[in-house]
Amino acid sequence: MQLGMIGLGRMGANLVRRLTNNGHTCVVYDRNRAVVKELEGRGVQGTASLDEFIAKLSKPRAAWVMVPAAVAGETVQELASRMEAGDIIIDGGNTYYRDDLERAKALKIRGIHYVDCGTSGGVFGLERGYCLMIGGEEDVVKHLDPIFKTIAPGIKSAPRTPGRNGASIPAEEGYLHCGPPGAGHFVKMVHNGIEYGIMAAYAEGLNILKHADVGLHPRAQDAETTPLRDPEAYQYQIDVGQVAEVWRRGSVVSSWLLDLTAAALVDDSELTGFSGQVSDSGEGRWTALAAIDEGVPTPVINAALFGRFESRGEADYANRLLSAMRKQFGGHDEKKE
Amino acid sequence: MQLGMIGLGRMGANLVRRLTNNGHTCVVYDRNRAVVKELEGRGVQGTASLDEFIAKLSKPRAAWVMVPAAVAGETVQELASRMEAGDIIIDGGNTYYRDDLERAKALKIRGIHYVDCGTSGGVFGLERGYCLMIGGEEDVVKHLDPIFKTIAPGIKSAPRTPGRNGASIPAEEGYLHCGPPGAGHFVKMVHNGIEYGIMAAYAEGLNILKHADVGLHPRAQDAETTPLRDPEAYQYQIDVGQVAEVWRRGSVVSSWLLDLTAAALVDDSELTGFSGQVSDSGEGRWTALAAIDEGVPTPVINAALFGRFESRGEADYANRLLSAMRKQFGGHDEKKE
Amino acid sequence: MQLGMIGLGRMGANLVRRLTNNGHTCVVYDRNRAVVKELEGRGVQGTASLDEFIAKLSKPRAAWVMVPAAVAGETVQELASRMEAGDIIIDGGNTYYRDDLERAKALKIRGIHYVDCGTSGGVFGLERGYCLMIGGEEDVVKHLDPIFKTIAPGIKSAPRTPGRNGASIPAEEGYLHCGPPGAGHFVKMVHNGIEYGIMAAYAEGLNILKHADVGLHPRAQDAETTPLRDPEAYQYQIDVGQVAEVWRRGSVVSSWLLDLTAAALVDDSELTGFSGQVSDSGEGRWTALAAIDEGVPTPVINAALFGRFESRGEADYANRLLSAMRKQFGGHDEKKE
Amino acid sequence: MQLGMIGLGRMGANLVRRLTNNGHTCVVYDRNRAVVKELEGRGVQGTASLDEFIAKLSKPRAAWVMVPAAVAGETVQELASRMEAGDIIIDGGNTYYRDDLERAKALKIRGIHYVDCGTSGGVFGLERGYCLMIGGEEDVVKHLDPIFKTIAPGIKSAPRTPGRNGASIPAEEGYLHCGPPGAGHFVKMVHNGIEYGIMAAYAEGLNILKHADVGLHPRAQDAETTPLRDPEAYQYQIDVGQVAEVWRRGSVVSSWLLDLTAAALVDDSELTGFSGQVSDSGEGRWTALAAIDEGVPTPVINAALFGRFESRGEADYANRLLSAMRKQFGGHDEKKE
Repeated sequence: MQLGMIGLGRMGANLVRRLTNNGHTCVVYDRNRAVVKELEGRGVQGTASLDEFIAKLSKPRAAWVMVPAAVAGETVQELASRMEAGDIIIDGGNTYYRDDLERAKALKIRGIHYVDCGTSGGVFGLERGYCLMIGGEEDVVKHLDPIFKTIAPGIKSAPRTPGRNGASIPAEEGYLHCGPPGAGHFVKMVHNGIEYGIMAAYAEGLNILKHADVGLHPRAQDAETTPLRDPEAYQYQIDVGQVAEVWRRGSVVSSWLLDLTAAALVDDSELTGFSGQVSDSGEGRWTALAAIDEGVPTPVINAALFGRFESRGEADYANRLLSAMRKQFGGHDEKKE
Repeated sequence: MQLGMIGLGRMGANLVRRLTNNGHTCVVYDRNRAVVKELEGRGVQGTASLDEFIAKLSKPRAAWVMVPAAVAGETVQELASRMEAGDIIIDGGNTYYRDDLERAKALKIRGIHYVDCGTSGGVFGLERGYCLMIGGEEDVVKHLDPIFKTIAPGIKSAPRTPGRNGASIPAEEGYLHCGPPGAGHFVKMVHNGIEYGIMAAYAEGLNILKHADVGLHPRAQDAETTPLRDPEAYQYQIDVGQVAEVWRRGSVVSSWLLDLTAAALVDDSELTGFSGQVSDSGEGRWTALAAIDEGVPTPVINAALFGRFESRGEADYANRLLSAMRKQFGGHDEKKE
Repeated sequence: MQLGMIGLGRMGANLVRRLTNNGHTCVVYDRNRAVVKELEGRGVQGTASLDEFIAKLSKPRAAWVMVPAAVAGETVQELASRMEAGDIIIDGGNTYYRDDLERAKALKIRGIHYVDCGTSGGVFGLERGYCLMIGGEEDVVKHLDPIFKTIAPGIKSAPRTPGRNGASIPAEEGYLHCGPPGAGHFVKMVHNGIEYGIMAAYAEGLNILKHADVGLHPRAQDAETTPLRDPEAYQYQIDVGQVAEVWRRGSVVSSWLLDLTAAALVDDSELTGFSGQVSDSGEGRWTALAAIDEGVPTPVINAALFGRFESRGEADYANRLLSAMRKQFGGHDEKKE
Repeated sequence: MQLGMIGLGRMGANLVRRLTNNGHTCVVYDRNRAVVKELEGRGVQGTASLDEFIAKLSKPRAAWVMVPAAVAGETVQELASRMEAGDIIIDGGNTYYRDDLERAKALKIRGIHYVDCGTSGGVFGLERGYCLMIGGEEDVVKHLDPIFKTIAPGIKSAPRTPGRNGASIPAEEGYLHCGPPGAGHFVKMVHNGIEYGIMAAYAEGLNILKHADVGLHPRAQDAETTPLRDPEAYQYQIDVGQVAEVWRRGSVVSSWLLDLTAAALVDDSELTGFSGQVSDSGEGRWTALAAIDEGVPTPVINAALFGRFESRGEADYANRLLSAMRKQFGGHDEKKE
């Protein structure tokens, strides 16, 4: 079927490619003319303006918005202002689900349908397919089923779960209608929150391995430094990159994130190309906010989130307060390392 | 080559099967005669006593101990007392690496070699192979290479990591000599610590999804209950089992542990068969102890560990203290829910 | 000066007492006639309706609202609908500061001033005075200074901070104008978040002392239970109540919360009267939300908050998931303790 | 009574002063002759060698060791080698209680008594008295009672706990015999663990206040930065030093540590004199180790401990791993701030 795509960054462009590779047709638009040109060809119709984009879509129109979260809201509005009742806007980015709720409500008044679609797959999605978490009205999501089915990885991409038999359900194909508007991004948000936790678990564990040699190093002997009681128990010089590699096969912690970690460590096990300032782009925070609102304890996900804050120096003032307190009660001068 | 196996529980028996299925021969012993009988046959020689076990092994003997951690120490001693210089004991269980250090040192005096081997693979290892993390002397580990190579899953069990070319290294086959005695169990310990963190990340995230409907439920209105500010944002009734399923394909959080989670949720998404008292069998604690000794922050792994403690009621006295303090300063009566 | 007080619960009534004991006059109202009657007398004028309450206040009126958070919003509205430009409403409860922002904005249109005042002091405030954290317009807060000064504990209630000399500032008297509307409750919110952290620190530490005898007790010996490596190091039977008492004098952890803990432990060091379901009434959550919005790491405050969630069984589903995963990968049956 | 004191640093010297000010006599020794000279005078007998020190003590000798943890062990040994059965060594430093267990055991063979005494009071103890947590044999601790009683702050230093009547118990005087050898340092260790938690609670909370103005600052608009949804809710410029001051009076979070925080902020609310590298000198780690051994969850204390590790860059490798993973799966370039 036909789909309009606005935003031809890495993700948007790859979605178009995956769709047209599989028999769908796409009308595409991006502020950047060059990327439009690049995609034009078999099954892809480029457009030079939003007006042209809208004009080329058959009714009921279906337009997928794949732009940075910061401009998603205005893009949806600009699209909607050119659409009519029965048309569909799909937000495939990392929008906060509360924005979905507001947008869906505003569009509904005009009869325009809003579908939110959390899209996971990173740079590998073109080939492997994307995992889709979808929110929206039942019949609208059903109408878009051919699109979702093509974008998703398909049942063959993983062994079938024991206990699941007969005809596959969409979840097994790699896409799921999670509920009413916002549900898709809600599930995607939590998905990313989990990702923060998993990433941190690996990073912490490998950091322990990296420091398994502390017993080999001399240690300051002063009142501000805890002595190492059993240095002989920390004499291991472990090749962290090889450990990541060996865990990829047969181990309970094998995962895609581990594959990526192993890949990152192949060239440079010291990771000297990174400074360790870890960004967080929203989903982790929103997950934490939702957990608190719900009253659900999420110590692991929060620890992972806070670790990122700390990596960017956000605990700095707090740490200086701690040093100041120590100075006050014990006369401890801060140690410069 | 020939390997002796002591302890024919699920893991030990499957190791023997995997070895003999691939051309090795095994001499086996277990206090439970029945399981010995069951294994006897092609390539497997059962024995009725430790003495017989030792007698049937060709020199230099190689005996793999696969018994519960609680009895591993005495088993190693009983074996060693019957062995001679040049023989090898492999501890394939979940021994604390500090015990390895002591045992290796004690055995070395008598010329007996000690190899520790962390073995991951759970109930799936017979078919998929086991991921092996090995500690011990270089030449001894090398001598056992045919055994390790057969037990491990092999390079085909995962796509090759980009950047790794040419002849495979053992890590790519799924086994790794991590360092001197204790190093294998050290790496396995951290592996399990990571596993705690990953498991908790999934569990927390899915718990958020499970409670995404809090806005649909009436809420007590009293001074002891936080009002839900935006109930309309928590009206989702999400099928947690289907979410686990959909994430298995194409998503960044796909992993073996997720596969298992999806399987567990197929039959009973409410998990009514479990009470939620989560055991911890040592590795998580030891990981946490090592991190503290090293001075490495591991907030995620620790949060996962403490979550298990809490699930078993170990925060009970602390919680009663909190209620008592609240009663003291605010006159708050504890709310019974 | 004259102050109106709506809501004569423990806090409201004690504020009235403290004010009238010190020369101010109060007009009071509560839906419960009995508590109004009880307060009437020297300096206190009871009223039977909001209309009468408003009528008895001299202009510009100043009315302090001291009602549960759940009804504070409507009470402010009912008051405001009877007031005129120049009048002042003070919300002295535990309102979420974002509600303050909205209320202040709405009232400003009509020329009514809104002051938010976080009030700490618990059941001891009548005698000791209340710590006040105030948000509102500069001149309005200044106008109310005599009220705040009387309610606050006064500079004598603590030794002067070294470095503070000359005339006292309000902060030293125990009240502080923190900023524009909402600032008072913002600071009070964080105050309570800190309180959660401190309470949990004590509770955790005392829980460690309580369990310092684990080495004296027999321990299950099975694959699901971590053996205690050094039982001889955990043979202490510590009188937790006496420890709380001894720390009250001279120790770095002495505090009011510790005083209260010691008091709670005098009668019943086992705290058998409590079940350990710890409520959270909002401020802790809001603190956590603010930290996340700001990107500030607050692992301790969050851990304290999540501990309360867990004490109420909110991790239950997550824990059952963990048990289910363990069953799947290791065949571990859940241990019932 | 007479007490020997070895180690005349700030703590040791002040203990001697407090004792001799109150009628006891002290024999003192320190490697540094100058500090010995400085103390000599009324009630204080200086010595120039350990032999002389021992010679001047009346039998049964009582010698208090107040030296850095790193040299406490050898000092105890040197003392013991010059002592005889019935003599007493008191370790008043911050020794790990497991070392106490070993030392007490070794000395017992020779009939020498070992008493461990956790001493809290910081630089204020000379005037305010020290809180003492004592481990050792019943009758030996009893024998030293006059010493402990004088060092402790006394019952007047805090209001009596409601419910405690009649003659004071030692805990109310500020010293407590906690149990057999090691118990004193065990309790002191946990005391310091709690201190870590309390300090971090304050630091985190004040850090939230410090950043309550994030809505006033421009924010990067890119895919790596979470947008601030409600900037108007974060427009507060809060005087953190004044907040610390106001909480000192009447508030539930008042404490000695808060007094110290307020003092630190008087001169320099930006704390520009500190870099924020927070030391940990052992007790926090040991507390965490004990909690894990006992199976007691201590998320708050651990978060505080890990915060210190992080402040010293110990999460660095872990953070670079996170950035590397993000680069791998999402093509995210690390943002340099």
